[in-house]
Parts: sequence; C-alpha cells; structure tokens
Amino acid sequence: MSDLIQMGEQAVAAKYKLQCLSTELKNQALQVAADLLVERANYILDENAKDIQRGKENGMPEGLLDRLKLTKDRIDGIAEGLLQVKALPDPVGKVLETFERPNGLYIEKVSVPMGVIGIIYESRPNVTADAFGLCFKSGNAVILKGGSDAICSNIAIVTVLRDALKQCEIDENAVQLIEDTDRAVTKEFMKMKEYVNVLIPRGGAGLIRSVVENSSIPVIETGTGNCHIYVDKDADLEMAVTIIFNAKTQRIGVCNACESLVIHEAIKDRFLPMLAKKLSEKNVEMRGDKEACDVLDSMVPATEEDFGKEYLDYILSVKTVKNVEEAITHINRYNTGHSESVITENKAVADQFLAQVDAACVYVNASTRFTDGFEFGFGAEIGISTQMLHARGPMGLRELNTYKYTIRGNGQVRG
Amino acid sequence: MSDLIQMGEQAVAAKYKLQCLSTELKNQALQVAADLLVERANYILDENAKDIQRGKENGMPEGLLDRLKLTKDRIDGIAEGLLQVKALPDPVGKVLETFERPNGLYIEKVSVPMGVIGIIYESRPNVTADAFGLCFKSGNAVILKGGSDAICSNIAIVTVLRDALKQCEIDENAVQLIEDTDRAVTKEFMKMKEYVNVLIPRGGAGLIRSVVENSSIPVIETGTGNCHIYVDKDADLEMAVTIIFNAKTQRIGVCNACESLVIHEAIKDRFLPMLAKKLSEKNVEMRGDKEACDVLDSMVPATEEDFGKEYLDYILSVKTVKNVEEAITHINRYNTGHSESVITENKAVADQFLAQVDAACVYVNASTRFTDGFEFGFGAEIGISTQMLHARGPMGLRELNTYKYTIRGNGQVRG
Repeated sequence: MSDLIQMGEQAVAAKYKLQCLSTELKNQALQVAADLLVERANYILDENAKDIQRGKENGMPEGLLDRLKLTKDRIDGIAEGLLQVKALPDPVGKVLETFERPNGLYIEKVSVPMGVIGIIYESRPNVTADAFGLCFKSGNAVILKGGSDAICSNIAIVTVLRDALKQCEIDENAVQLIEDTDRAVTKEFMKMKEYVNVLIPRGGAGLIRSVVENSSIPVIETGTGNCHIYVDKDADLEMAVTIIFNAKTQRIGVCNACESLVIHEAIKDRFLPMLAKKLSEKNVEMRGDKEACDVLDSMVPATEEDFGKEYLDYILSVKTVKNVEEAITHINRYNTGHSESVITENKAVADQFLAQVDAACVYVNASTRFTDGFEFGFGAEIGISTQMLHARGPMGLRELNTYKYTIRGNGQVRG
Repeated sequence: MSDLIQMGEQAVAAKYKLQCLSTELKNQALQVAADLLVERANYILDENAKDIQRGKENGMPEGLLDRLKLTKDRIDGIAEGLLQVKALPDPVGKVLETFERPNGLYIEKVSVPMGVIGIIYESRPNVTADAFGLCFKSGNAVILKGGSDAICSNIAIVTVLRDALKQCEIDENAVQLIEDTDRAVTKEFMKMKEYVNVLIPRGGAGLIRSVVENSSIPVIETGTGNCHIYVDKDADLEMAVTIIFNAKTQRIGVCNACESLVIHEAIKDRFLPMLAKKLSEKNVEMRGDKEACDVLDSMVPATEEDFGKEYLDYILSVKTVKNVEEAITHINRYNTGHSESVITENKAVADQFLAQVDAACVYVNASTRFTDGFEFGFGAEIGISTQMLHARGPMGLRELNTYKYTIRGNGQVRG
C-alpha cells in the first residue's frame, strides 16, 4: 500500500470520528494547539531556518524568502489565528430547513462536514495551521500538500498540531501532511477521489490551473482576480479617486486588488488627470485604450492582452466605454468572477451593474478590497471561490460544510 | 472556429440575456414549447422512427428500444413536464441573506443562475426537453450532448424548442444540441471550461465515471446508488418486510432502489424467512454472508464484490451485523452517498443512524425510493447528487442556481 493510500484510509477513519466531536472538545483542541505552537516556537523556528537556508542557496527572491520566514511574532500570529477560529460558531449540525410531505415523511436538511478536504498550497507555512484550524472546526479531516520550499516548516507545524490532538485524545489523523515533495505524488493525490471529498488549491494561477486540469476530485477554484472598477458619468469623482487608489495600491499582490479601470467617456477628460495625479504617488503605470491615451501623455497604450491580465503589480489598465451596458459587457468578457465595483450616484446604473455583472462580489461605491472572509464578518476564510458550484466569494467555516437530508417515517413505501 | 467553440460563444451570449428574463416571459416560452411539441408530434415521431429503425438494425435490446421509443402519449408527457416546470416558482433573484458591516457596507446574498450548463446523457429522448425546461426556468443556457442512439429524436425535439423560443423573441441559443456524435467531440466538450460553468452527466455508472475523470469543467456527480436498509433488532418486522419489498422491487433499474440488506444478528432467524417469502413473489435472489446463509437454504453465498454492487436487478445482498455501530461502519464503507434507511422502533438507534451514516438522504422507517425531486416536493429534478459540493440528493430548480453577493457602500476603502 502506498503512503498516499494509507493516508487516505487514515483520513477516512478520522472523518467519521470528527463529525461527531462536540464543539467543546474541538475548541479545547484548538486552544491546546495554539498554546503548543507558542511553547514549541523554537523547534518550529529551527526547522524554518533550514527552509530559509535552502531557499537562499537556491537563489529564492527576497519577497518569497520573506513569505517563507517565520519569527516568534509570526508564530504568535498563527496561534492567534487558531484562537479566532475557536471563537467562531460551530457550523456542524445546524437544521437548515424542515418540511413535511403529505405522506407524513418529516424531512430535515442538516449541515454536515464534507469529510476529507485536500489542500494544495504554496510556500507560506502559516497556511498549514490556518487550513487545519478551519477544516478541524468544521468537522473535516484534512490532508495538506504544501510547497517543497516550506517542507521542514510544515512538518514541524503539523507535528505540533498532531501532538495537540493526541493530548486531547482526538485522532491525530485529523491533519496529515504529504511529506514527499515529488510532483508525481501531487498528481497521484489529485486522483484520490475515493478518499478525498473536496480539493482546494491555494496559490498562484499556475497552481490552480494545474489542479483544475488534473484533479478527478471535485475542486473549489479560488483566487484569481482580474477585478474592475467602473467609473460612471454620474460618479462622485473624488470618491472614485479614493476608492481606486485604495483598491489598486493598498496591497498589490492580492486577488481582490483592482487591475482595471473602466471609464465613461463623458468624464474621462476630467477624471483621468485627477486619478493619474493620485496614482503617481505610488508610481502606478496606466495602460489605456486609444481614447484614454488621447487624454494623458503618460498613458501607455494597452494591448488586448492587458485587459485580461491580473497584474498583481503597480499597473492599471484603462478601458473607455460609451455607457454602462458597454462597461458590463467588457467586464463580463474579461473578469475572473471575483470582485467588480461601480462608482456612481445614479441608482438605476448601480442596480443594472449589480444585476448584470457576473462575479462573486459586485460593489457600488466601495473598494474591491473588501472581498475577504474577515471583512464580510465570517471570521476567517479558507479562500475566495471564483466558481459557480457550492460557494462563491469568501469561504468561511460554513462553506466547509455540506448538508444531508434526514427523513423520518412510520412505514412509508412508494406507490 | 470549431462548431463547439461557436456553440460555447453562443451559449455565453445567451446566458447574459437569460439571467434578466422575467418569470412571465419564461413561463410563456415554456407554454409555447409544450404546445409546439404536441402540435408537431408527427415530425418528432418520424424522426424518432429513424432512431428506432437504426437501433433495430444494430441489434439494440428490447429494453433500450423501449426507452428510446416515443409515442403520442409520451410526447404529451414530455409537454406536460414543461408545464409542471412552468408552474414552479422562479428560483432566480431571491435574497437569501442580508447583513450590514460595522463600516456601513450593506451586503445581500442573492440567488443567480449558474450561466451555461452542460448535460451529457444517454438514450432517453425525454431528457432533452426535461433538461431544457429546468435549465431555462432557472435562467441558464444549456448545451445538450445526448446519446448517438437518439440523435434524430433529439434534433427534432431541440428544433421544436428553439422554434418556441424564437416565437417568444428569446435567444434560441438558450438551448443547443451537439449533433456530432463522435466521442472525441464529447471529450473536447468536457474541456470547455471557458464557456461551460457546470457539467451534469445523466446516465449509467460508466458515463458518469468518464465525465468525472475527463472533465475540467466542475461536475455534479449524479446517480449511482448502492442503497442499504438496516433492520435493527428493535424493528417492526412486518414494516421491514413491506419497506424492503418496496425499495427492492417497485422499480429495479433506479438509483434509489435498495441493493443491500444489513440485518441485526439477533433477529435474522425470525426475519430472513419472512423476507424471503415475500421477495419470492418477485423471484428476488438473496446473496448473503455466512451467518445469513446459515438461516436460509435459498441464500446464495455473497462475495466481497457483492457488497459494493449496484445490481439494478432482482438481487439483494445480505450482511449480518452485531449492532448498529457495525451496520453504520459497513454502510459507510460500501455506500455511494445516495440513500440509506434504518428500520427500528428504538429512538436512540434511529438518531445514531441518522447522525453517523454518510449519505445524501438517510431514512428511518421508510423506503429509500423516496429520494426523488417530486417526492421531496421540489416539483422536478435534474438528478440526484451523490457528491459533497453544492447540492446533495435531489436537485430541483433551486439547485441549478448559485449566488452572488451585492455590496452597497458610500465610499468605503480598506484601511
């Protein structure tokens, strides 16, 4: 039996126990895990140092090294994350609906855990504990496949988490880490449909594409965000500048950052200079269509490719449109189903935009940066879904559950 | 541009129009479609006769020929199905939740269509109109890929449906049929992630497996049902006989039929003869483990394979257990996540079974045959989901929608 199959069987055995755990015991385990992470910080830091050392030897860029690096403060933050999940309501066992049929069958729709969740992610080791916390509190076993860059850190964190579970007399196979960093193992993992109920990739567009194309396990696609802000002719232009500056520059590497401005032609002459002035504070490059280039000398001509691009950089594409219909058509063509915003004081335009733009989160007069589990009040998130099935937008504990129907009868048979 | 890509683009263009259609117009179109199907029944029957003729030439078995065959009555039934869908409430645009954040953002969670739904199905031509009706009423465009056996019938039905849409001035690309019956085209279709939001296979286990393994479009897995009934030591044995007879024999080829009996050892000596007598009315073969074989001479010894098998035939496997825990473990190991039932007068046993059996529908004292959109009161169904993501169990109109968040602000930016 391969290691992966064994892990699969262990996860399945664990999931049946996890779905029956009391909220109290789950919360106790999260507390113990948080405490142990802090208590054994030196062990984790020593293991993390090995990853950092190897990264440096392999010429890993500074930005990635920084994402990989753990410190005492960062470990405190990871532990704090588990305590936040502890404080959230338990999503399991909620009666979502009840109905009685004319034949007397009494049906309840009840929230239940998914079972075994697989998470494939890249180099940040904090995801290891975050993903465990959310899956565990929602009653699921989790099999983690982290990046090879962070393997020592991940092994250390999972060792501590499993020790915490053991201390609470909970099956430690509630969390398992695939330690073999061979890509062939990842591919094999994506075919383990018999053991893994849902697969969630977290990372860059390449990772997500690979999972979607290769997995036979149902996938929740997350993350890619080519987010637009449409500035209507009836916009409060000062507000529009403030919102775009925030959505573009507050944090550039995130999926809910604004990547493209769509602008009504009637206001472009007034608005683009205002915006360019503000964006110049952060040296944002603007790449526009011909109409936009006519307004600003600093505007770089955009190619077709620019409009489909998630830059994750200090770059903003600019598309000029004649009306809200054209704005909606453009956005529906190029967006990734993540977050889109309209800036307007015109209620009819706002309503049309909200109704017709196809994305998980559609905003009026607000920054796209709010698409986030914490900002939505979900308390935490496992990712932002950009697909149609199951969940859309920020996914918290509730979205890590499914449901089942329980039906009580007194001898009913079908006629 | 290949035909498939063109169909994909046409479906995407249609979906944006469909999501804005009024309930009235959708209902009108369903009425016109129902009327036209009846009015042009002779055209459909002529085309169906070509499929039947070809089927006979190819030596198609009687049972399949019967599923393929249309009659005036069956066409009336298909039209009636569209009118039933017309009568159901429109699932689109329901406000599912509202919440306000401390920063003043007002968030609504609203039901919206999926977009473009792909349906891959086998030989029954009635699915063509059924699937259209459900997808259309729920605001989705649909691309159908039917079996090659029914190609002439399917073309005829889709021609009539598209004519009905045209009469109502609705984009007829709301429904399209892939007419090329080459298997390579089906494989290409399953990769059209850019155009198709969800893929639903309807048919046998082989078809469903092929779709799950080859699709890069998110799939809703439907249909396979290895359903168990556990007869507890505290069961009303007369009731148990009646329920098992119904679940096993009322219709053998369906996914919610009972395939396996799990029986408490304390009552096997009394119960198995009672059950065998009743099942002999339909010549049901029983295949049991050693303990069951010891009771009845007529019992055929079961192999390990029997317990994992969806017979769809007059065969029932029999497994003996010591208690409800062992019953649950056995069922969770062999079931397909469809429908499971316990027969017991003991409330604690019933509650434990409902809580711990992992399936879409878990019953107490009722036949598994009730897992069905009509029986649940959903009015119609597109299939029975056996996966964890999105929907579980019977899927009606509501399950063909997803949601989006609309967020209204007044200038909020993220700090």
